[in-house]
Amino acid sequence: MDKFQQYVNANKERFIAELQDACRQPSVAAQNWGMREMAEKVLARLQQLGANARLIPVGDGAPVVYGEIGEGERTLVIYDHYDVQPPEPLELWESGPWDAAIRDGKLFARGVADNKGNLMCRIHAIESYIAAFGALPLKIKFVVEGEEEIGSIHLPQFVKENRALIEGADGCLWEAGYKDVNDRPVISCGVKGIVYVELHARGARRDLHSAQAAIVVNPAWRLVWALATLKDADDNILIDDFNKHVRAPTAAEMDALKTIPYDEEKVKAELGIQAFIRNLSGIELLKKYLYEPTCTICGLYAGYIGEGSKTVLPNHAFAKIDFRLVPNLTPDLVVDLLKKHLARRGFDDIEIKLTETGEEVARSPLDSAIVQAAIQAARQVYRQEPIVYPTMAGSGPMYPLCQALGIPAVSAGVGWHDSRSHAPNENIRLADYFEGIEFVRVLIERFAQT
Amino acid sequence: MDKFQQYVNANKERFIAELQDACRQPSVAAQNWGMREMAEKVLARLQQLGANARLIPVGDGAPVVYGEIGEGERTLVIYDHYDVQPPEPLELWESGPWDAAIRDGKLFARGVADNKGNLMCRIHAIESYIAAFGALPLKIKFVVEGEEEIGSIHLPQFVKENRALIEGADGCLWEAGYKDVNDRPVISCGVKGIVYVELHARGARRDLHSAQAAIVVNPAWRLVWALATLKDADDNILIDDFNKHVRAPTAAEMDALKTIPYDEEKVKAELGIQAFIRNLSGIELLKKYLYEPTCTICGLYAGYIGEGSKTVLPNHAFAKIDFRLVPNLTPDLVVDLLKKHLARRGFDDIEIKLTETGEEVARSPLDSAIVQAAIQAARQVYRQEPIVYPTMAGSGPMYPLCQALGIPAVSAGVGWHDSRSHAPNENIRLADYFEGIEFVRVLIERFAQT
Repeated sequence: MDKFQQYVNANKERFIAELQDACRQPSVAAQNWGMREMAEKVLARLQQLGANARLIPVGDGAPVVYGEIGEGERTLVIYDHYDVQPPEPLELWESGPWDAAIRDGKLFARGVADNKGNLMCRIHAIESYIAAFGALPLKIKFVVEGEEEIGSIHLPQFVKENRALIEGADGCLWEAGYKDVNDRPVISCGVKGIVYVELHARGARRDLHSAQAAIVVNPAWRLVWALATLKDADDNILIDDFNKHVRAPTAAEMDALKTIPYDEEKVKAELGIQAFIRNLSGIELLKKYLYEPTCTICGLYAGYIGEGSKTVLPNHAFAKIDFRLVPNLTPDLVVDLLKKHLARRGFDDIEIKLTETGEEVARSPLDSAIVQAAIQAARQVYRQEPIVYPTMAGSGPMYPLCQALGIPAVSAGVGWHDSRSHAPNENIRLADYFEGIEFVRVLIERFAQT
Repeated sequence: MDKFQQYVNANKERFIAELQDACRQPSVAAQNWGMREMAEKVLARLQQLGANARLIPVGDGAPVVYGEIGEGERTLVIYDHYDVQPPEPLELWESGPWDAAIRDGKLFARGVADNKGNLMCRIHAIESYIAAFGALPLKIKFVVEGEEEIGSIHLPQFVKENRALIEGADGCLWEAGYKDVNDRPVISCGVKGIVYVELHARGARRDLHSAQAAIVVNPAWRLVWALATLKDADDNILIDDFNKHVRAPTAAEMDALKTIPYDEEKVKAELGIQAFIRNLSGIELLKKYLYEPTCTICGLYAGYIGEGSKTVLPNHAFAKIDFRLVPNLTPDLVVDLLKKHLARRGFDDIEIKLTETGEEVARSPLDSAIVQAAIQAARQVYRQEPIVYPTMAGSGPMYPLCQALGIPAVSAGVGWHDSRSHAPNENIRLADYFEGIEFVRVLIERFAQT
């Protein structure tokens, strides 16, 4: 056990307590809940680490916590976010989402996997590095935003206004990663784009007795009819002209899928499903997973949804929908296509509300130094070959923060296959957390040497 | 002013206070909230009136409050219910649903129009009658159930077990009625049938990050696709074989529509709609309203429906649907057709949950004594010709309680066109309440003389 590991071991209890403390502060961007408090907590922790840190305001958004620490030839951006998803549905949590309870070696809290665990893990790795070896071998620039879960609304503006802080960096360690169903570490080199919309249908001035439904329009039906034109039961997106903007994967992109071992049976068993969509498997499954766009109903509401029956004709219905984007779909394009598609079918009474500005697709070259450093670090720490995803199926502001500035990025982190990000009982395993600290340390060392 | 009217006038304040008291007791059958308390309150009030009253248990349901009062050749059943609809959505109420606040001559409360106002109005009319004239001219049998808003689940069983109490009655005054947009009294001689179902679609074992939606089934989509097969955008019900069971209205039934003045422009203005379904008007509008079945989404839910965005793949979605039935559709038949329709289209993974047993269609002859007594009473009290609906568009247990026993029924009451039954800010106008007391008095006199 070297000095680094000795320091980590000696501070284990405190590290866990600090992680719990970070998780106990609600910071739900969608509900504007606790954002300022959490930003200040992160700022204080970075300052305590020795970083030259400050809150950088961006428009009327949640501030970015920015911090620099270390010196060296290489500069590494560390991107994380201090906001989390809404904790609902609360009744499905076994312990409260802000309790940060520990059971069976796991820490349960909203945001612990996505993304407070990774943020704290990186802080703890750097603290331990400095304590063990005196100084960092490179310069690190923390960019910790507060709006990732609502589409990083202000991050492009932040980059625009603070471009000098970021440009010229050599690589970026992106926010998250996990171990797959066979406990193999997964690192990813890109993100899908995303655009999130609400569709609102409205009827009479107020809810009515459902007897009136014989003659008064029902917005819940109008919403259903409109939605049913967007995607068919075989999961084909039917929006006019949508698919002709989807660039087919290149041969090299398809080849990259062949290196991914995806244990379909284990995944299905864990999720409790009989089959994947269209009964896909093998390369075709991975292709749809990583290289195809989605159109997902994330929320649906109309009328009475409580216990028992209420015979009501609702006057309002809405759906929340996210689209995950692949090249060459962009957020603006998708909203425009959607609007035209609905109007053409007489659904122009349905209001399209944009809750976010959307995010572009981004991918980093597999042979870039940061990706290679992550692969080497994973091999050394986890003692096995990591699984490299050319892109994750999820999204993030990798385009404006990295790709647009020519900075390659790699995503890796302390989650596991049952971390339940965005869902009740979100958790990480504490053993993964401490392995993650070692991984960050080796990644820093390797990247500094490139 | 005769003795009856003098008594009503002298007791106006107390009558209002008693009505408020009845409205302040929550009694939401769907949520099993306050049912026992409300039953006992009604029982006590009937006993105070001098009725021979008791609670009659029915299986594990809410008890029926049964009471007899008066003697005479004729026997009149008065049917009311002491349960109310759920008060949600609470945020749209201007005063609390249980406050029974009075503003601008109106009393606002959940259940005041449907049906506590009518129940109390009838009690107050009878109290005033006895006080003014010494005794009732006929026998009255109160049947006040507690499950009307959840489909009168146990009322058929009540009738079966207590048939001797009801059979042989000469007529029934049904629960409710209202004044139309031109303040003309509406009385109705029948009800549509109803069946209420929930459709549940399920996906993975738990909610997932929406990135997974590329390959894991989304129950919200499955629900939308299934629903879209039930009804088209022109409001035609598409369930296989459904329409061939709908008996077309007879010539006499169509003639009855010609006597109904339906002020379409005023109704549209009040509801805030541009047009009725299919842009219908005139006889065709009334035909759809009264003689055609409905398939109505009363509630719709999946995933995240709070503020802002949550990128989640839900693992459960449901719809609450009511069907209003006309001859010859029955609840069992509709559920059976629905089940087969969904299975034929591969939607047999969608669970159909029956929250109620359903109700049959019922209609009473327009020339029956009770209908004629109501028409005469309306003419005398409201000084205009009432509008007679051969059936209402709503439902109720008129078949088991009346039609199956050969008892004609008529529905009339103290609502108005903006009473907002089943919706926030339910209300009645107090002037209508006191006119309603006079209406019940004249109806009793007229019916006793037939």
